[in-house]
Amino acid sequence: MTPYHHLVHYYETDRMGISHHSNYIRWMEEARVHFLTELGFPYDKLEEAGVISPVISVNCHYLATSTFADDISIMVTVAMVKAARLVLSYQMINQEGKLVCEAQSEHSFLRQAGGFVNLKKDFPDFYQKLLELSQEED
Amino acid sequence: MTPYHHLVHYYETDRMGISHHSNYIRWMEEARVHFLTELGFPYDKLEEAGVISPVISVNCHYLATSTFADDISIMVTVAMVKAARLVLSYQMINQEGKLVCEAQSEHSFLRQAGGFVNLKKDFPDFYQKLLELSQEED
Amino acid sequence: MTPYHHLVHYYETDRMGISHHSNYIRWMEEARVHFLTELGFPYDKLEEAGVISPVISVNCHYLATSTFADDISIMVTVAMVKAARLVLSYQMINQEGKLVCEAQSEHSFLRQAGGFVNLKKDFPDFYQKLLELSQEED
Amino acid sequence: MTPYHHLVHYYETDRMGISHHSNYIRWMEEARVHFLTELGFPYDKLEEAGVISPVISVNCHYLATSTFADDISIMVTVAMVKAARLVLSYQMINQEGKLVCEAQSEHSFLRQAGGFVNLKKDFPDFYQKLLELSQEED
Repeated sequence: MTPYHHLVHYYETDRMGISHHSNYIRWMEEARVHFLTELGFPYDKLEEAGVISPVISVNCHYLATSTFADDISIMVTVAMVKAARLVLSYQMINQEGKLVCEAQSEHSFLRQAGGFVNLKKDFPDFYQKLLELSQEED
Repeated sequence: MTPYHHLVHYYETDRMGISHHSNYIRWMEEARVHFLTELGFPYDKLEEAGVISPVISVNCHYLATSTFADDISIMVTVAMVKAARLVLSYQMINQEGKLVCEAQSEHSFLRQAGGFVNLKKDFPDFYQKLLELSQEED
Repeated sequence: MTPYHHLVHYYETDRMGISHHSNYIRWMEEARVHFLTELGFPYDKLEEAGVISPVISVNCHYLATSTFADDISIMVTVAMVKAARLVLSYQMINQEGKLVCEAQSEHSFLRQAGGFVNLKKDFPDFYQKLLELSQEED
Repeated sequence: MTPYHHLVHYYETDRMGISHHSNYIRWMEEARVHFLTELGFPYDKLEEAGVISPVISVNCHYLATSTFADDISIMVTVAMVKAARLVLSYQMINQEGKLVCEAQSEHSFLRQAGGFVNLKKDFPDFYQKLLELSQEED
């Protein structure tokens, strides 16, 4: 899996002169979308298959600031996967190799029509790939 | 009609120290929603009635800057209303009475099921109120 | 202390039909600004006094969805205060009394000129008020 | 000059299922930053040279909708350049070659220390390049 790159936009800075902390939550989503595409299960295709994946929780630790024109490289790893729950970890590193942010997000998988998706049964290929990636982390 | 008030949020400022210009487009929407509610036709009720109202165009003239904690008062007026098209004007004034922004937005009215809404025929009360407000402007 | 109210904006929803999860991080900031103003130490005045307060970490648990036109009431409490560190807790409740989100944010206090602020020494009134509120929580 | 590409993010959609209209104003900024970098005058370097460039006005015509995962190609052209004023035009085209948005933005150039910049005198190379691009448009 390749890292996702985000060039910090001017409109993402605040009057402290740095990237506003709320944007990192959005960059996590951008990196997650890139990760799912690389995995072969792009999020728009999951939606077309009637699946939605709400975010259950996020946490984010800001270790260094970033600002306009910085090139943030984001690596996504699988912290945990279960039948109806996925936890992803994010490491964000700037163009000088400095770790600026560590974060996690937790997701469930629902049918648009209602009811939970069982990843293991309903999307076994997807589940298997996530599981393998999660074991690589150990 | 009463003006809408927007207190500028910290996350709306940029590293120039001022409200980022893209946010005024969002404040126009906030003021429009307030305006429609005061008129007796709240936007969420229009949606429930199967109507959506995409924005066709916007223009925005930035006359003075604003920043965090400023209290922006936004007055919405009807510039033009036709059977399937509405043009609104916005005047934004800060807490010291200074004009910071003048803007316009243009809207059409569509059925979620497809096809245009004819405001005059399908929502005569709404059309009539908009028409009266538009004539007050003359 | 009174709760802060946020009416969910149309532009805060996503194509899942709900408030995008990143916006809750911004609502936390809005509620925090309101809280500091009520406390008698508005954030823009702290900035004028040469103090900035970067966010060190956030976590956010999404318990129910919200959407356009919902009225979210946000209660801020002091989870912990030390000489150079503050942890705030947030409870977000919708217009029907349902808990939609529980969150925390962690803050440090720096001088714009460089170096940490010691709240206890440098802003004893502010520190004292935060300490009292933190003890009420127990 | 090469077009700028923006992949529409999930958080940029609204509950109408389309990219919220305010985001196009932000994409204009992204494309402008790319354009200035290609021109050899990156915006962060202009800022380092003590220049800021506030937006004086924008207008934006939404011709077709876009949504999550669309690949929007944005071409920036110089509509007009004068000693202290620049007007840029934007054409946004989706992955199927459909024109989704036409827009313009108007900019002035100020010194952070106060006072206008005269592009022709103070940044003759920059002015000359913009002028040539503007004449190509004719």
